[in-house]
Amino acid sequence: MFSKSVIDKFNDVVGAEYVLTSKEELLSYSYDSTAGMESMTPELVVKPANTEEVAEVVKVASEEKINIIPRGAGTNLCGGTIPIENSVVVVLTRMDKILEIDEENLTATVEAGVITEELCNRVEAKELLFPPDPGSMSVSTIGGNIAECAGGLRGLKYGVTKDYVMGLEIVLPNGKIIEIGGKTVKNVTGYDLPNLYTGSEGTLGIITKATLELIPAPDTRKTMLAIFDELDDAAETISSIISNKVIPVTLEIMDQVTIKTVEAFAEIGLPTDAEAVLLIEVDGLEEVVERDYKKVIKICEEHNAREVELAKSDEERDELKAARKSSFSALAREKPTTILEDATVPRSNIPAMIKGIREIAERYDLKIGTFGHAGDGNLHPTILADERDEEEMERVHKAVEEIFDLALELDGTLSGEHGIGSAKVGFMTQEIGEDGLQALRDLKYALDPKGLFNPHKLIGADDNE
Amino acid sequence: MFSKSVIDKFNDVVGAEYVLTSKEELLSYSYDSTAGMESMTPELVVKPANTEEVAEVVKVASEEKINIIPRGAGTNLCGGTIPIENSVVVVLTRMDKILEIDEENLTATVEAGVITEELCNRVEAKELLFPPDPGSMSVSTIGGNIAECAGGLRGLKYGVTKDYVMGLEIVLPNGKIIEIGGKTVKNVTGYDLPNLYTGSEGTLGIITKATLELIPAPDTRKTMLAIFDELDDAAETISSIISNKVIPVTLEIMDQVTIKTVEAFAEIGLPTDAEAVLLIEVDGLEEVVERDYKKVIKICEEHNAREVELAKSDEERDELKAARKSSFSALAREKPTTILEDATVPRSNIPAMIKGIREIAERYDLKIGTFGHAGDGNLHPTILADERDEEEMERVHKAVEEIFDLALELDGTLSGEHGIGSAKVGFMTQEIGEDGLQALRDLKYALDPKGLFNPHKLIGADDNE
Repeated sequence: MFSKSVIDKFNDVVGAEYVLTSKEELLSYSYDSTAGMESMTPELVVKPANTEEVAEVVKVASEEKINIIPRGAGTNLCGGTIPIENSVVVVLTRMDKILEIDEENLTATVEAGVITEELCNRVEAKELLFPPDPGSMSVSTIGGNIAECAGGLRGLKYGVTKDYVMGLEIVLPNGKIIEIGGKTVKNVTGYDLPNLYTGSEGTLGIITKATLELIPAPDTRKTMLAIFDELDDAAETISSIISNKVIPVTLEIMDQVTIKTVEAFAEIGLPTDAEAVLLIEVDGLEEVVERDYKKVIKICEEHNAREVELAKSDEERDELKAARKSSFSALAREKPTTILEDATVPRSNIPAMIKGIREIAERYDLKIGTFGHAGDGNLHPTILADERDEEEMERVHKAVEEIFDLALELDGTLSGEHGIGSAKVGFMTQEIGEDGLQALRDLKYALDPKGLFNPHKLIGADDNE
Repeated sequence: MFSKSVIDKFNDVVGAEYVLTSKEELLSYSYDSTAGMESMTPELVVKPANTEEVAEVVKVASEEKINIIPRGAGTNLCGGTIPIENSVVVVLTRMDKILEIDEENLTATVEAGVITEELCNRVEAKELLFPPDPGSMSVSTIGGNIAECAGGLRGLKYGVTKDYVMGLEIVLPNGKIIEIGGKTVKNVTGYDLPNLYTGSEGTLGIITKATLELIPAPDTRKTMLAIFDELDDAAETISSIISNKVIPVTLEIMDQVTIKTVEAFAEIGLPTDAEAVLLIEVDGLEEVVERDYKKVIKICEEHNAREVELAKSDEERDELKAARKSSFSALAREKPTTILEDATVPRSNIPAMIKGIREIAERYDLKIGTFGHAGDGNLHPTILADERDEEEMERVHKAVEEIFDLALELDGTLSGEHGIGSAKVGFMTQEIGEDGLQALRDLKYALDPKGLFNPHKLIGADDNE
């Protein structure tokens, strides 16, 4: 607990009403959506109303050498917003204004605390699209999505959050407010700070405002569910669709473990004897969609799909998608602890990755459901376990390590879209090497010499601290 | 001139054959493609054969506290590769291998010295596209394009170089070699170094290898030239096309000064009494192109285009494009000194920007031809002058300042695609403020504490040096 004089300094900035000090209140900020992580109660939570208050909060914390944990909705899956000792959590959710939707320049300017889905709905009403659609979008904030470089189901065709960040307002660790980038689609004035901050996981300052790129909404879309008796056939279908130059907006896979679990939970008529299903959606202009969906069905059939179901209405489409969307929650109901990974490989290595994960599951006698964004190589192997069972958790940790090893062997990455946070920080050098990690640390401490911003996340603990 | 012992160290690394020491040879590296800049002869030029040699060169230069100027073909337009005193120019052109074109993952892996056009041709033969197409692509290198984040005529639809850089191999200022990013389309492992290095203008190390994203080549395209009696009509046509949700691959403007100059030079039948012409190309699937080009013609006509010429063959298309492509060389023939700017504004402010440039030209009694990538707000106002005429150059400098002021007033940026280099470094704080510039400098000196990499470019001279 901080001294009264320190708390009063924060009260003076944001008003006592927005400084949380009670044990019960603080407890809600001791964890995030990541399973199997140790929680840690912060000393204080503050909720600034605007950028100037954020800057003042940062100055107070910096003077008092208090760690700063920036936070939106806390929906990340990498232990990215779990406090460490001596921390103030800075919650951005009060800064929830959509400041502008500029239809001529196809941009939206928003405060960091805007709920992702709210923005999506607002721009869709204008026949525009903000493509990044992480699973948590109904509660996640734009600021959090940017800090984690969130992905989603539309990533294959439309890319991820960083592809849509044009400009940012940032409170630097020194308390200064800078604006970088803006509404021009081209900008080479200085290093690309908008991209450096996107995915920086709150370690370089606090994102307070963003100018985002929008695109024209597609005219139409078609959604299909293809059922495969053989996993290999499903995997080859993925590669074949893309090498036939169809880029679906969504190309998702669910393996048998996932299918069975979803069906047991949701009873939507999934074939529990199938080895894999693919959820495929193509969008765009009428003529293109018409051509593409037929091509997709043909490719699925050529690869021995048992059946390809085409949604004939919006309701049918939502039903097909419901299966994929409920994958995580269905799996999470099975056992108390759900370890969701997002190891990612080049898409040509998807078959090898899926096979490898199955072998790892067998070797460690674990239930692993694999689903995810197969089209862009971003799988979510999900281990079902019980953290009270120490022996099992031992096997889980070994399996996770092997999944990482496998992904890297297959030219992949530790994380496609969930981030490193505290959950994967121990594996960083395996991918980027000691020299790579040192370069990241050099950059971090250049901007945050006291090391107060979300310490221990992404780049780990450092001697500088 | 360096001492024999220093030169011998470089000889030992790359072989004496690839260390240039004669006055005549060094002279060729004393300038780049930027007009009106003071040249400076380097002490030495070295041409390493591979990444290991680059790393050794960096180590020698670092030990000897010699400035390092990385260089490809030197086609940049911002004074980005002009040496300062005590410099070795490290030329990457011997590293010119296309290492792999991976059709399954849609990636190309290349050494930094590969000529851009050679890569484009190679991937086009496989019906793929590497979209960035800077004007200098027939001689420019990929490494240089990445260092400058080059744009081009296809930027409106397909984006710029940074949108296609997936992974980089970099020699850090400390001589260590790191590989960052790779073939996965999603990667959030660490800060986004590929994007930080893209556009870093050689100030953070040397890019030696790149993994680039490719896209399926469009099936077909249609090219049009629309002629306007009123500049305002042309400007409004640009906005109208995009707000009608047609995103042309190319949407270029030439104003009357440019039209007249090109016609005088090339005699291709351009209407010299027209106030502006737009060059518009749409590409994609047959059906889409068919729909889009008709839509474009209709929009042009609704905005009082005097005539819209549609290319009926590849030859006709090349003819239409020749006018735009020869803009710079035609203007450059008019007077001895051609100052080419690339101030960029949000596309809705294109009309205001064009009008403002005309007023500036009148006020300072200068001939300014404006052409450029109107669709993405990236104009190239080109001032024709004679650097021997001091009084005129005085007016040129004032006009340039006013053009920058105007771009920033209109929510724009100093540079859309040419870079800051040494040419615009004095204007940086006007756009990003003292605090923004300080953040850039902090990042630079974190990675390059001796400040040896392309000093004075992009972030200017610093007290740390």
